[in-house]
Amino acid sequence: MTHPSVPTRNERLRALLEGPELFFLMEAHDGLSARIADSAGFPAIWASGLSISTALGVRDSDEASWSQILGVVGRIIEASDVPVMVDGDTGYGNFNSARRFVRQAELVGASAVCLEDKVFPKMNSFVGEDHHLAPVGEFCGKLRACQDIRADPNFRLVARTETLIAGGSVQEALDRAAAYADAGADAIFIHSRRKTAAQIEEFAAQWGDKLPLIIAPTTYAPTTPTESFRAMGLRGVIWANQNMRAAFAAMSDVCRTILSTGGVRSVEPRIAPLAEVFGLFGYDQLAEDERRYADVALELR
Amino acid sequence: MTHPSVPTRNERLRALLEGPELFFLMEAHDGLSARIADSAGFPAIWASGLSISTALGVRDSDEASWSQILGVVGRIIEASDVPVMVDGDTGYGNFNSARRFVRQAELVGASAVCLEDKVFPKMNSFVGEDHHLAPVGEFCGKLRACQDIRADPNFRLVARTETLIAGGSVQEALDRAAAYADAGADAIFIHSRRKTAAQIEEFAAQWGDKLPLIIAPTTYAPTTPTESFRAMGLRGVIWANQNMRAAFAAMSDVCRTILSTGGVRSVEPRIAPLAEVFGLFGYDQLAEDERRYADVALELR
Amino acid sequence: MTHPSVPTRNERLRALLEGPELFFLMEAHDGLSARIADSAGFPAIWASGLSISTALGVRDSDEASWSQILGVVGRIIEASDVPVMVDGDTGYGNFNSARRFVRQAELVGASAVCLEDKVFPKMNSFVGEDHHLAPVGEFCGKLRACQDIRADPNFRLVARTETLIAGGSVQEALDRAAAYADAGADAIFIHSRRKTAAQIEEFAAQWGDKLPLIIAPTTYAPTTPTESFRAMGLRGVIWANQNMRAAFAAMSDVCRTILSTGGVRSVEPRIAPLAEVFGLFGYDQLAEDERRYADVALELR
Amino acid sequence: MTHPSVPTRNERLRALLEGPELFFLMEAHDGLSARIADSAGFPAIWASGLSISTALGVRDSDEASWSQILGVVGRIIEASDVPVMVDGDTGYGNFNSARRFVRQAELVGASAVCLEDKVFPKMNSFVGEDHHLAPVGEFCGKLRACQDIRADPNFRLVARTETLIAGGSVQEALDRAAAYADAGADAIFIHSRRKTAAQIEEFAAQWGDKLPLIIAPTTYAPTTPTESFRAMGLRGVIWANQNMRAAFAAMSDVCRTILSTGGVRSVEPRIAPLAEVFGLFGYDQLAEDERRYADVALELR
Repeated sequence: MTHPSVPTRNERLRALLEGPELFFLMEAHDGLSARIADSAGFPAIWASGLSISTALGVRDSDEASWSQILGVVGRIIEASDVPVMVDGDTGYGNFNSARRFVRQAELVGASAVCLEDKVFPKMNSFVGEDHHLAPVGEFCGKLRACQDIRADPNFRLVARTETLIAGGSVQEALDRAAAYADAGADAIFIHSRRKTAAQIEEFAAQWGDKLPLIIAPTTYAPTTPTESFRAMGLRGVIWANQNMRAAFAAMSDVCRTILSTGGVRSVEPRIAPLAEVFGLFGYDQLAEDERRYADVALELR
Repeated sequence: MTHPSVPTRNERLRALLEGPELFFLMEAHDGLSARIADSAGFPAIWASGLSISTALGVRDSDEASWSQILGVVGRIIEASDVPVMVDGDTGYGNFNSARRFVRQAELVGASAVCLEDKVFPKMNSFVGEDHHLAPVGEFCGKLRACQDIRADPNFRLVARTETLIAGGSVQEALDRAAAYADAGADAIFIHSRRKTAAQIEEFAAQWGDKLPLIIAPTTYAPTTPTESFRAMGLRGVIWANQNMRAAFAAMSDVCRTILSTGGVRSVEPRIAPLAEVFGLFGYDQLAEDERRYADVALELR
Repeated sequence: MTHPSVPTRNERLRALLEGPELFFLMEAHDGLSARIADSAGFPAIWASGLSISTALGVRDSDEASWSQILGVVGRIIEASDVPVMVDGDTGYGNFNSARRFVRQAELVGASAVCLEDKVFPKMNSFVGEDHHLAPVGEFCGKLRACQDIRADPNFRLVARTETLIAGGSVQEALDRAAAYADAGADAIFIHSRRKTAAQIEEFAAQWGDKLPLIIAPTTYAPTTPTESFRAMGLRGVIWANQNMRAAFAAMSDVCRTILSTGGVRSVEPRIAPLAEVFGLFGYDQLAEDERRYADVALELR
Repeated sequence: MTHPSVPTRNERLRALLEGPELFFLMEAHDGLSARIADSAGFPAIWASGLSISTALGVRDSDEASWSQILGVVGRIIEASDVPVMVDGDTGYGNFNSARRFVRQAELVGASAVCLEDKVFPKMNSFVGEDHHLAPVGEFCGKLRACQDIRADPNFRLVARTETLIAGGSVQEALDRAAAYADAGADAIFIHSRRKTAAQIEEFAAQWGDKLPLIIAPTTYAPTTPTESFRAMGLRGVIWANQNMRAAFAAMSDVCRTILSTGGVRSVEPRIAPLAEVFGLFGYDQLAEDERRYADVALELR
């Protein structure tokens, strides 16, 4: 049914991962942020666990249920046309929980799920020192179960290792990544929360071309130009929470200003005009469709 | 069970509406915006149909189902401690649809629902000229059915008239508002999209003290100081979409900047640090609770 | 990705509708009833508005939201392998509401949506005399909008006319059905609540082969052998509520018996053993998967 | 607001648990089964994990998310007036997951949550031998966290020990139950899957009056008259899956019969008439309300 010359979202994400170029995945946490990221021109979206949890009003420690997360992913899919990679945390339980999450994510239209090798419920990687890795064999079992359940072979499974977050060495991270590749992962997400990219550079140098590498340089991007990531041979760079943090700062500012000034006059210049909202969402198209569909009797023979 | 000296959210909203002072309701559209509005100090939240629809990624023309809207309201309630007034659009059908919406809203913890007198599915009041008012008797029936179904007498029912949006006169708006008061409304939301507050001023002058008046001065706030609203004897001022528009502008800016500069270095100064997010959400408290609850065997006798 | 020799659910339903044989659609209202209907051997499932509403605990007067209905449809899809035709009532509003429902139904995996030509919110067809038909042109607009939005051309759109329920003549029903065919319907559902099939027989005789005909003979099946439907040239027979009514009677009986006898001894013989439940749901397979996936490290090189 | 002479659901369940009489809790798994159980006269409902999972179409191994379970609980609450005790499985993770579940359950209107002392994800107690108990201290921490978070002191927390299911002794079960009582449980659910009540009798004899005891005698009820449970001093008897099993058997029978006979004639006598469904759901009341609320303009002054 799909026209042969129009690749599916899954095919497009696979092509990005297997292609030669570094590409960006922009965080989204609801339909609006997805629509903005897509409209701006990002080729892919990262449905971030931290940002979605924050938008839902809860903490990124598996406080949201997996079905609540996938409910938001459905909104992101509907509001965009680019492929969506879903942050699946640890898979919400055992191998069966993980593969059910992957299957449901595929059903709502996601093009990839990323699973991380910590223990459920996990704590956000940027918080504290309480990060525990799952046994390698258990996590490999999850990956294999997920691979066996997907319907579309172009759907991607990303294995994220938190070895460096949990205090492990680059070598330990490499060993885990190799096991995950053997277990069927399609790409490796190597995570670090250092202020510099030194660990990532070392990892990438030793990893080579075995599988595409993905990073989320939240802490080390300020010190590392994107050109360096390209030089390291990385494939995907996730801007994992910047939309949420932008919204957070802007809403905090507007709330404070309205209360302190007693009105909105001074905030008007820095908030979007309603016309811009209506433009992005195609309200004009709806009015046109109204004319086309509201009453079609006359044109019938 | 509730300590007598701690009023419920419903009691607090009722007190604000029946009190002598003008007060603000700040728009929220998800758990995060609710948490920010509450934390900033607003005494009440407006769960906006436009903003929630936009966050969900759809248009404010009843494209979101009533249960999707109430799902978000549940997130807003959980993330805040202040009373929440829910934008119930036209009530999503007939008197039975409307009272079911009100009942479910009360069950998820809302303190008020606002119903407007247009035809379902309605179009956002700021868009186009296609706004049709429901017959007065039909809308009064909705209001009465909603009043009869609420469990807590402190729960508030607000009647919003779109007479001025639909091109009617101030006198017609007054007639409708009077009928809605007779049908059981606890407050009147008089809506206008003019650039000035002239219509509102005329309405308020003639309305008197019959029921508290509420406005959402999106279009005329820039030309009208809040002091004027106070002088008109208005009770509630809804800042109905500013959080969403602030987030919209900030996310658009961040997305464009990341793509044009190839990185996040220049956006860092204007987005919230993660530490601020973690602070607002009480991640420290979770770590402390972990110590208290993770293993309590030893302290048992 | 799908093997060419395995037709999709959508292709299978289309083949049934366009084939020469009469076929059955069995009602389901949750995952369990869908699994039982599929397992018994029905080639297709009818996701009934009446039965789903009843299972949810509400009345079949659009008291459940469209997204609540589709949530159940998702459960039905996951629990079965046969195509699912979704009872879409009147489309939950205008042309835009209807096409959004169709689009979302397609996304959760439905193979067809059936829309009826009454006014929203509708009342169940078997209840009372308060049934109002929508203007023909308005309903044709809905159908056309739905046809224009579907992604898979094998997805089917069924137009149900309630003309006979609303007191209209067979000729009026034929006129409406002809208009719906012109507007793009893929099949016609002609509904009657008479005790005999006389109206249906007259309709079918005059309709001919223009589009496949579907019925739900709830009231006239007891007097009409299925062979008669075949002789009339009908294509689909929906057993629209028998699963729910069977469950209703059985649960009422068990509840009364437990209370009157003070225990379950006398109900045991007429309720399913747990082993039968576990068998249908593949608990054995889960135990086997546990052995395969719980720890796969050793088999890696 | 609640009239002083009408006890809340929470108060009623507490009174049942603390009263001198044995009482029944009937299983419900959706709005329909809840309405039937309530209408039949049961004083309380058990929102069963097994039955709800089965109705959703998945296995009772935490395949449904906690929010999906609570979505069904919301339907059960709305469809009934009696108190509802929710099967909370193991609490869906750690102490924080468990207390969030309890809080959300209270918000949707449940009067009690029962937590069991197995490891997440758990397997249904009647299936296989793979049942692992959580460390006592960890489970006590969950209980305490749940007690600390409830808003209404009449909300009940039930601790269910699976010691006997996991192959432990009656003494071990007593030790665990004592620790759970110290940690704050309001009642103990002692579970066994033997063919006789011998273990339960031994447990009850040694337990005494420390806290009310609850059982679900699925396997041993056929050999044990309810009078025996009364003699043991038990308080609550949960008929934990009989509604679901009744529906399962009845729907299987109807599906097979329709297929084998080619029609519904022979099933009609054993399924509920639609009139009975409409009667239980108050369709008449809706018609009456329509007359009262559809247009109230005339009766206004």
